[in-house]
Amino acid sequence: MPNSFGKLFTISTWGESHGPAVGVVIDGCPPRLAITVEEIQVELDRRRPGQSEIVTPRKEEDRVEILSGVFEGLTTGAPISLVVHNADARSNAYDEMRDKFRPSHADYSYQEKYGIRDHRGGGRSSARETIGRVAAGVLAKKILKQAASVEIRAFVQSVHTLAAPVLMHFPSLAEVEASAVRCPHPETAARMIELIKTARSEGDSLGGIIQCRIQGIPAGLGEPVFDRLEADLAKAMLSLPATKGFEVGSGFAGTKLKGSEHNDAFNVKDGKVHTVTNRSGGIQGGISNGEEIYFNVAFKPTATIMQSQQTVDKQGLPTELTGRGRHDPCVLPRAVPIVEAMAALVLVDHWMRQSAQTKSFKL
Amino acid sequence: MPNSFGKLFTISTWGESHGPAVGVVIDGCPPRLAITVEEIQVELDRRRPGQSEIVTPRKEEDRVEILSGVFEGLTTGAPISLVVHNADARSNAYDEMRDKFRPSHADYSYQEKYGIRDHRGGGRSSARETIGRVAAGVLAKKILKQAASVEIRAFVQSVHTLAAPVLMHFPSLAEVEASAVRCPHPETAARMIELIKTARSEGDSLGGIIQCRIQGIPAGLGEPVFDRLEADLAKAMLSLPATKGFEVGSGFAGTKLKGSEHNDAFNVKDGKVHTVTNRSGGIQGGISNGEEIYFNVAFKPTATIMQSQQTVDKQGLPTELTGRGRHDPCVLPRAVPIVEAMAALVLVDHWMRQSAQTKSFKL
Amino acid sequence: MPNSFGKLFTISTWGESHGPAVGVVIDGCPPRLAITVEEIQVELDRRRPGQSEIVTPRKEEDRVEILSGVFEGLTTGAPISLVVHNADARSNAYDEMRDKFRPSHADYSYQEKYGIRDHRGGGRSSARETIGRVAAGVLAKKILKQAASVEIRAFVQSVHTLAAPVLMHFPSLAEVEASAVRCPHPETAARMIELIKTARSEGDSLGGIIQCRIQGIPAGLGEPVFDRLEADLAKAMLSLPATKGFEVGSGFAGTKLKGSEHNDAFNVKDGKVHTVTNRSGGIQGGISNGEEIYFNVAFKPTATIMQSQQTVDKQGLPTELTGRGRHDPCVLPRAVPIVEAMAALVLVDHWMRQSAQTKSFKL
Amino acid sequence: MPNSFGKLFTISTWGESHGPAVGVVIDGCPPRLAITVEEIQVELDRRRPGQSEIVTPRKEEDRVEILSGVFEGLTTGAPISLVVHNADARSNAYDEMRDKFRPSHADYSYQEKYGIRDHRGGGRSSARETIGRVAAGVLAKKILKQAASVEIRAFVQSVHTLAAPVLMHFPSLAEVEASAVRCPHPETAARMIELIKTARSEGDSLGGIIQCRIQGIPAGLGEPVFDRLEADLAKAMLSLPATKGFEVGSGFAGTKLKGSEHNDAFNVKDGKVHTVTNRSGGIQGGISNGEEIYFNVAFKPTATIMQSQQTVDKQGLPTELTGRGRHDPCVLPRAVPIVEAMAALVLVDHWMRQSAQTKSFKL
Repeated sequence: MPNSFGKLFTISTWGESHGPAVGVVIDGCPPRLAITVEEIQVELDRRRPGQSEIVTPRKEEDRVEILSGVFEGLTTGAPISLVVHNADARSNAYDEMRDKFRPSHADYSYQEKYGIRDHRGGGRSSARETIGRVAAGVLAKKILKQAASVEIRAFVQSVHTLAAPVLMHFPSLAEVEASAVRCPHPETAARMIELIKTARSEGDSLGGIIQCRIQGIPAGLGEPVFDRLEADLAKAMLSLPATKGFEVGSGFAGTKLKGSEHNDAFNVKDGKVHTVTNRSGGIQGGISNGEEIYFNVAFKPTATIMQSQQTVDKQGLPTELTGRGRHDPCVLPRAVPIVEAMAALVLVDHWMRQSAQTKSFKL
Repeated sequence: MPNSFGKLFTISTWGESHGPAVGVVIDGCPPRLAITVEEIQVELDRRRPGQSEIVTPRKEEDRVEILSGVFEGLTTGAPISLVVHNADARSNAYDEMRDKFRPSHADYSYQEKYGIRDHRGGGRSSARETIGRVAAGVLAKKILKQAASVEIRAFVQSVHTLAAPVLMHFPSLAEVEASAVRCPHPETAARMIELIKTARSEGDSLGGIIQCRIQGIPAGLGEPVFDRLEADLAKAMLSLPATKGFEVGSGFAGTKLKGSEHNDAFNVKDGKVHTVTNRSGGIQGGISNGEEIYFNVAFKPTATIMQSQQTVDKQGLPTELTGRGRHDPCVLPRAVPIVEAMAALVLVDHWMRQSAQTKSFKL
Repeated sequence: MPNSFGKLFTISTWGESHGPAVGVVIDGCPPRLAITVEEIQVELDRRRPGQSEIVTPRKEEDRVEILSGVFEGLTTGAPISLVVHNADARSNAYDEMRDKFRPSHADYSYQEKYGIRDHRGGGRSSARETIGRVAAGVLAKKILKQAASVEIRAFVQSVHTLAAPVLMHFPSLAEVEASAVRCPHPETAARMIELIKTARSEGDSLGGIIQCRIQGIPAGLGEPVFDRLEADLAKAMLSLPATKGFEVGSGFAGTKLKGSEHNDAFNVKDGKVHTVTNRSGGIQGGISNGEEIYFNVAFKPTATIMQSQQTVDKQGLPTELTGRGRHDPCVLPRAVPIVEAMAALVLVDHWMRQSAQTKSFKL
Repeated sequence: MPNSFGKLFTISTWGESHGPAVGVVIDGCPPRLAITVEEIQVELDRRRPGQSEIVTPRKEEDRVEILSGVFEGLTTGAPISLVVHNADARSNAYDEMRDKFRPSHADYSYQEKYGIRDHRGGGRSSARETIGRVAAGVLAKKILKQAASVEIRAFVQSVHTLAAPVLMHFPSLAEVEASAVRCPHPETAARMIELIKTARSEGDSLGGIIQCRIQGIPAGLGEPVFDRLEADLAKAMLSLPATKGFEVGSGFAGTKLKGSEHNDAFNVKDGKVHTVTNRSGGIQGGISNGEEIYFNVAFKPTATIMQSQQTVDKQGLPTELTGRGRHDPCVLPRAVPIVEAMAALVLVDHWMRQSAQTKSFKL
């Protein structure tokens, strides 16, 4: 099921950019979780187009409906079907893409794979697919919060060559949401916004890095061998459009340390085992150790640019293409809630898996 | 199944460092593949301990046996069971680890997860688990080679702060195997070996970066959305012991380019669609586009060092631990065939998945 | 994913009897299949309530909408989302069921499992869930028909103690549809209808047996060991509401034959290997052998009856319950298209699996 | 993974009848279960060839070894690898089968599927594959027993046309084991044994029905919709060699009752909700309701008979075949522990799944 994610808390997304709707089915959600359509809407609004001056102006209210699985305000254990109807679907803005492959988009590879593609706005490859992930993530986040006061906070760490200083504290949601760019360092945020505006005015686009930090995860989540917590987080992040890299804990920079510098010594604080440093990023041997989990995700510059580009058409003939349609000059601000949602989905799933194996039976 | 990997070409590994044996079961392997125990042994020898002066001296022949699934030299379509008996299992060298948690190892997190652990040599968390991956990878590689002359070549790109120059050609196996460190740039290789020897003499360890390049993959492999080719490669790589990061194509460096600099224009060469540049790393929208696939994997310095370290014991009391047992001062040379094996496993699986959906029926 | 079925051609159903809608997401459907909403509707009409005088009078048009995965009349390889809005949802007819457990329904076991349940019309346990199965089955059937002229024909073999004579030919769709009860033997069909009418007038209900026959499946489908074709068919059938048994080929009666009477000798007809008899039911060692596949499914009498019954309430106190709401006195006529759909889903999935393993690579 | 079974408690079997060994890998077993090789051996001895005068005389000790996943007598949560070496592998007794397809065996369908087969003793299709199932079942049974004093008891209900009287009590293990045929009704058992001896002396074979009863399963196991408890039991049973049918609760006979006769009224006994009758077989809406679970499994007469049979060879030419090799004239006595093992595997898996969804989080 290439369009599903998660083993026990499973989401299945569906829908195309310019079809009638996009949606998600959540299977395996624990019963008796209180959830309202408004709670889900709050997060969708964080990824909604048109929310600020630095994102795509596509007009989408992205109003979500709950079609199943919730009864009298509580989840029932049955699959939860959520749907968002597409509104501002100007398909004819994409007529040129019917035959021409947009550079660094999925057009050519989809065509080669399926022998057919819905070219309108990227069809299935559109980032509108992530609406379902964010919606499902709301339930996952809420479960984790109720279970262990887990907090998941993603934010924009760098845009192009402009990086925020390393954050020495766990940022509040308010700090992240304070700027349209979702960087909790106000001065850098202001400069990032200028950078993005300049890029847009030049018909160009920018990439950057999102950092995600997670507090409150108890030791024991994740599986040895293939389904390591960092492996599933890596997959989750690389499954997002426009991502090119993932690093956890000390990451690529950690390769430049010696073992004697890199190892996290254990000590005891308030009767609990802790590590003195946290280059492991809260995961050891694939399994959480109770420390803060943190990782970075690299996003390439948006492929859609408002400049003329060399390409080929379906007949294999060279041609030119000028970017049209609405787009984000930088996807990172809207990607922040998506990164959080994917992290939450991974963690809830592993929590359930760990419970199943180690807590179902008293042995 | 936390100890299984792959949807259609599935491997399940089992075994502990100091148990009687380690092994793998391969399910879904196509029938009528010619395979000999000697072919598998060749690759196991590339990851074997004791193969050179810069790796662990643990004495293991790692002789593999085929217990099922091969009949008269050909695979039958039935599961293939491969087993390697452990020989040099000096368990008592690990007595100290019974009660003390080794820093930056999996000891503590396993104990918290399961309430029990086989402490001998890391038990299940030992890199001996990867024997099964390498063995299974031999079949995957051979299938890909027969199908499309696919070549998968990993090599050591950097050790600590010492990086080889960017390789401008696809290296031959001989170039990689020419040095014990498996870096195809001879001068850098020589310096890497010195670096590793020095680290060992200091009782310290080093990390680094492995690069993997893949030629011959046709367009169309990978799935949109969750099971993108890069997402599954990321998971595969982050499922390896000691890995901290993954980047594909332009990776983290690509975040510092503008869209106009980063996009890969399409052109036509010899009647075939190609990209002029390849910052996409051979994957667009999660699906291969026919170009070379390449990615980097970050490995932290080996956690086992021969120095005294601060830690705690199972009773939660502070203590000290001095590294004992045999170990690799730098895991990268032996990780090269493992990276290749995992890449091959991902690719064969996606090839089968793509065939199933798009080629099972003529529509 | 308890609400999903199929490994490569996967359906995920969602929705409750009295929620806003029910639906299905089909993932893995091959691209470029021509499909219209009208083709799907035809089958939904075969399972629709109110279609004849012997089924429930609930007024549901069951109009299906395609929300994704189909572009310009062809499937694209993306997930296909189908939705049917519930219309005649008289929830208050079910107020009594809020607290009382209906005998031989799922009320009590759902309550025990989840600690909550949507009691209206059975909620998730309602047979309205099968709408999605039938809709998805249309695509599966069409694929099989195009691939190998596969015909799947289910029909009512017995109602209560009244059984049709053993059918000596493969019935046409017209023969099955000729009577409201979907028994292709006209005289028996007429008597079945009388039987059902009588049961309804008595406020009672009837069960029976559906037989399903499948022509055109080539040899080679199904897997040895766990995913045998008959095992997956058994699971598919026992996953339908009200089913109590499954038998393939000679079935339970075959236990009364000796091996010498039961074995199917091989011979050659028109240059092709065949079996002289077909007690194997077209499956040997879990794998199709090219002969007709046939099996029987036992359905219990509908649990909802219009008579007073002894039960308990949520407080665990004895009480009485009188059936209310609309219901089928005999579910078999409407179950015929559902049995066919499930069979088609199993077969398409195994076809794709077999292709993946044996045809992806030329070895 | 066609050779794997179970979602959370997963077994993967491997091995051929005349290869070096057969085995199983158990993944997901809860940690800290005390288990010894002797406990496993006890059950293997119940399915072992040569155990009595009415089963195959093949000489196999079937000594099991534990290769991983158990440390100091306790499971660790890591995969458990169990292996049994084949001893009495007289391959040349099967030379005739290299080219000729045995009637009602898997020879022809395997050949068609894979284009190759290990013909020796049926290769992968041999019932020796079930050794791994029985071994894994020992752990599953023990877990269930510790968790809720669950008892699973299968026994032979009929052989050919000879059926034991309906058993009015839950039979003890001793009652079942009292006779070589494993029918707890001594008089019938004696007659069954005579019947089987006669069949053997005639070079013929017999089928029959195994009944399985399960006490102690709490309400709440099983999933609505596709993974109903009875659906997974049906799949488990139909995945066994030689099975042709499955019925749960009232089964096929229940189709001849009216709803008013068939429904299980609820009442309260000792403060607990019960059903007065149990035609549901302990499962309602796919979920256990706390009553005894019971089902029947139909086994066809053994396909191997010592008589001359008409068949074809690999070249498609008509030929004759005379049964050779050792075989069971009636598989049912040895199938009893296999049925129990499969039932235990289904139940443990569902117990873990139910715990994961409903107990991982307090909501």
